[in-house]
Amino acid sequence: MIEDKQPQRTSISELGEFGLIDYLTKNIELVNSSTKFGIGDDCAILEFGDKQTLISTDLLVENVHFDLSYMPLKHLGYKAVMVNLSDVYSMMGKATQITVSLALSNRFPVEAVDELYDGMKLACKKYNVDLIGGDTTSSNLGLVISITAIGEIEKDKAVKRNGAKIGDLVVVSGDLGAAYMGLQVLEREKAVYKVNPNSQPDLSGYDYIIERQLKPEARKDVPPLLNELEIVPTSMIDISDGLSSEILHITKQSEVGCNLYEDKLPIDPTFINVCEEFKLDTTTIALNGGEDYELLFTIPQTDFDKIKGNPNFSIIGHITDKNSGVNLITRGGESMPIQARGFNHMEK
Amino acid sequence: MIEDKQPQRTSISELGEFGLIDYLTKNIELVNSSTKFGIGDDCAILEFGDKQTLISTDLLVENVHFDLSYMPLKHLGYKAVMVNLSDVYSMMGKATQITVSLALSNRFPVEAVDELYDGMKLACKKYNVDLIGGDTTSSNLGLVISITAIGEIEKDKAVKRNGAKIGDLVVVSGDLGAAYMGLQVLEREKAVYKVNPNSQPDLSGYDYIIERQLKPEARKDVPPLLNELEIVPTSMIDISDGLSSEILHITKQSEVGCNLYEDKLPIDPTFINVCEEFKLDTTTIALNGGEDYELLFTIPQTDFDKIKGNPNFSIIGHITDKNSGVNLITRGGESMPIQARGFNHMEK
Repeated sequence: MIEDKQPQRTSISELGEFGLIDYLTKNIELVNSSTKFGIGDDCAILEFGDKQTLISTDLLVENVHFDLSYMPLKHLGYKAVMVNLSDVYSMMGKATQITVSLALSNRFPVEAVDELYDGMKLACKKYNVDLIGGDTTSSNLGLVISITAIGEIEKDKAVKRNGAKIGDLVVVSGDLGAAYMGLQVLEREKAVYKVNPNSQPDLSGYDYIIERQLKPEARKDVPPLLNELEIVPTSMIDISDGLSSEILHITKQSEVGCNLYEDKLPIDPTFINVCEEFKLDTTTIALNGGEDYELLFTIPQTDFDKIKGNPNFSIIGHITDKNSGVNLITRGGESMPIQARGFNHMEK
Repeated sequence: MIEDKQPQRTSISELGEFGLIDYLTKNIELVNSSTKFGIGDDCAILEFGDKQTLISTDLLVENVHFDLSYMPLKHLGYKAVMVNLSDVYSMMGKATQITVSLALSNRFPVEAVDELYDGMKLACKKYNVDLIGGDTTSSNLGLVISITAIGEIEKDKAVKRNGAKIGDLVVVSGDLGAAYMGLQVLEREKAVYKVNPNSQPDLSGYDYIIERQLKPEARKDVPPLLNELEIVPTSMIDISDGLSSEILHITKQSEVGCNLYEDKLPIDPTFINVCEEFKLDTTTIALNGGEDYELLFTIPQTDFDKIKGNPNFSIIGHITDKNSGVNLITRGGESMPIQARGFNHMEK
């Protein structure tokens, strides 16, 4: 376990709850002018003038959402922030603040919590987000991380899931499936380690997919990119549970159907190699893999010229009427209904 | 366990995560005009115009913050909301929205989660607060509840902990210590039940203190009451960890000292009786009991006439210079330094 590798250990109870909070939050700088007051009182105070406030929250539970045997705490902290910021970007918003609540068991020394916070602070710094408050408590239950992200956006400019129109193009940023295959490689190495604790994990050649799993980046750049291109998406969502699950959210809430094209799904060469190695179908994983934190959105067909050939985006399909259903058009030209088979933590 | 008393059980996995969220959130009405969009997308959208936004978050962990053997889930839901709203009122704000994240293990059937939500919805209705989003996930770790409360307040009107001035009066709403003694009674009945499972809990005569523990009310009424009295507190905090711990927050952040008077601490007659029964000192419990969710605040001495004799408030002391320390003046006239001995979940 990562937290046991630390030679130096300070028991959390030595600091006490308030001591721990003081310790964790002493170096937190505030960078956004909308943050009038951050940590140190009952509430944070925000002020947005004519802007609207976006709020999003996620709960991450040990052994459900992460496995500390291969997830370094610093990466976990970073990823936990990304998961939340991604929700703000997926409304076309600008993330401005987060709150962080932690439940910690005694097996975590202060140094471990510090590493976790280091990852969160790094994420905040890189993404220009203020950590403005939270709660820290003990747990007899392992580690639980709850983050609430707050963002701003011009009035009535938030892009929701329910605006896709028949004929719209379906677009996705980045590539798909790599985070899931990164997890498969890590799980394999963990299994090897269990059998032979002297083995050294061999992760060379897997850097990209492992980074996608352990240190994903939220697509902060997409809202300004689309603004520059003068494209206003009609609907948008982030890909946390998998493309299939997310497109079904958009089509359900927009009351439309959709055709996605197998040969248009953006996938990385490393991802293809690893799928071959694991004897897994690239399309199945690209559709259902999850945790990519890319953005999936729809745009009017008239915006085609603005986005075609843009290396940040792939046009993967188009919106149809509701009765046509939600389908994948295979390379062979067959139409297969898409079902949600994304990560579903409730069914684990 | 409360959740096992249900004759009807629906496994959460039958619904799946999205099904559960749909199920839980289908009857949530939005009442605040500042809520432009609530549950059903990546973020909630709020709009406050010239108002400021307050954000507060709390994490509640099973067997740390609550014991389901005597805490009915509906009460737990209600209390979880109170804990958070109390933080908004303690800034003189108006609570307007909450987000709720739950981690649930399989031992909870849907009906149990429903009860929990019923309590939260009841609290929201009574306090005019919108439930605007959240996250629901599985847990191998018991029940975890994370709530973020959002509130509004006029610009620069939020009352923080750091404004107490020498000579200010120290005031508290309601009475102190009852929630803690309610817990003692419930713990005693649990111990009796363990020895003799056929015993019937005898809680008659303890109604007030048990209600203070199981179904506390946040002091929504205090900010408008003070506004009516034309009193602007110089500092304010809610009493979640105990009076001693909270007054130390105020004095530390305001860089002042304080004298509190033992004979001024507001306590209820039932509370006195139960303390006698348990052979506990009323002053010790009133100082350190915690979970009362009353408001502790300081006001200028010149406001004395506005507040004296008001049945909602007790003047319990005054602010001194920092070097005089934070003391309790006993009935015998002795000065004893006050130390934080409130609930400290990290040290349990």
